[in-house]
Amino acid sequence: MAKKFSSRRGVSLPEVQNLSRNRSRRATTRHGAPTANKGYWIYGQHAVEAALQNPARVIYSLLATREAEASLPQTSHQPRIVSREELDALCGKDAVHQGVCLNVEPLDNPALVDVIDRPGPILVLDQVTDPRNIGAILRSAAAFGAAALLVQDRHTPDETGSMAKAASGGLDIVPIIRETNLSRALQALQKAGFWVVGLDAGGTRLDRNQLGDRRVALVLGAEGAGLRRLTRETCDEISSIYMSGPMESLNVSNASAVALYELTRPVSD
Amino acid sequence: MAKKFSSRRGVSLPEVQNLSRNRSRRATTRHGAPTANKGYWIYGQHAVEAALQNPARVIYSLLATREAEASLPQTSHQPRIVSREELDALCGKDAVHQGVCLNVEPLDNPALVDVIDRPGPILVLDQVTDPRNIGAILRSAAAFGAAALLVQDRHTPDETGSMAKAASGGLDIVPIIRETNLSRALQALQKAGFWVVGLDAGGTRLDRNQLGDRRVALVLGAEGAGLRRLTRETCDEISSIYMSGPMESLNVSNASAVALYELTRPVSD
Repeated sequence: MAKKFSSRRGVSLPEVQNLSRNRSRRATTRHGAPTANKGYWIYGQHAVEAALQNPARVIYSLLATREAEASLPQTSHQPRIVSREELDALCGKDAVHQGVCLNVEPLDNPALVDVIDRPGPILVLDQVTDPRNIGAILRSAAAFGAAALLVQDRHTPDETGSMAKAASGGLDIVPIIRETNLSRALQALQKAGFWVVGLDAGGTRLDRNQLGDRRVALVLGAEGAGLRRLTRETCDEISSIYMSGPMESLNVSNASAVALYELTRPVSD
Repeated sequence: MAKKFSSRRGVSLPEVQNLSRNRSRRATTRHGAPTANKGYWIYGQHAVEAALQNPARVIYSLLATREAEASLPQTSHQPRIVSREELDALCGKDAVHQGVCLNVEPLDNPALVDVIDRPGPILVLDQVTDPRNIGAILRSAAAFGAAALLVQDRHTPDETGSMAKAASGGLDIVPIIRETNLSRALQALQKAGFWVVGLDAGGTRLDRNQLGDRRVALVLGAEGAGLRRLTRETCDEISSIYMSGPMESLNVSNASAVALYELTRPVSD
């Protein structure tokens, strides 16, 4: 039977509320004066623009080249004009900073209960560790209107510049929930009315039309390793992306994008 | 009116045949004895396995660690057992070689006429230059059964180890066609019965059900720049991926995966 999201509206959600909130990962005061030791650098036009426009983002300083200054959105943060070489040195040799860098604090991670009323599916990553992959997944999550990204705290890197760059703004749009125990978080989502779908080979075909109005939490494992046993056993259903080709394999970022697309495309008539 | 692929069967396809075949990019003899100066190194288990199993691949030597040897497919190529450190030095510090390396020649690039009877859509990249992006796109193209990848010769990097690794075997499955003039190649495909769809913002919704039985060539531009004017004008239709979220942007690899999925998913009842 379909678990309807509407069935949980108005309930107190104790399971969700009792999950470790696990939000404050920093011992330092966050609103003190900026120093060289605080925060990290977000670079690239889309990433910097999204961070500047995120009211929850603690921002210390904005640097831009003279050429890139005009591309910045109008905010209360005035850029300090610097040379391209200074930004190269700040962001690292291979960072495509596009002339803009922003020194920021990592965002607070909300609790599950804080995001559960946002529309869209919740994407869950079971030990995906590459910051660029996580960034690219956040970008797709923003494009396809995911409610949140849920990850296991211990195996997920903190925010970095390369994650923010790959997310191209998605890091400041899609909330990231960090939980200690992923299976317990999935069970809490189930009790809140979510249908938990694990993406893996050999499952039923992932099909928007079959899922109807259910709210979905979609779980992806690390490439190679796949879903861990306990995660897999917690899922209501194991589904696979339909692939017509000779090689049944997508990288985790592409698998996330395709699955989110399938979950959020218009229902066929 | 739908251009049916079947309508072109049996015709001589002069436009396709007259395109520059552009296949031999190497002056050296390809079947000579292996030397240190020949070929390039493919690394990573899936990439090496696919290359070993590709009869068209010219292979010079296979290196493997003792631990990784057992994972190799049974072929006529016996590995030379080396240390992990030797492979690290050969492939570069950041290469995830998984204990296997294969010295190979780049594949010959077929002409358009050679691949046009393969089933599936043809994916076209208009100046996508990053080897890892191209590799990831080849992997998705193999997963979703694309007939071929068509690229502009001048702006597309040659095969590299990092491209092969990102393709995870797709490089030895999906033929790459390199054309000098992309618009002319698209026109040839149109004359051969293909419906050329450019993927860009503001188009009609890309919808498998609307495309019916048409054979599709799907054109993607570089991130940021998008489709060039002439490429865009050659398309029969500009389409967009349906995105329900607040940020209308996917990276080119994810956009390719989602679009190929939409083109090849089962038609809804």
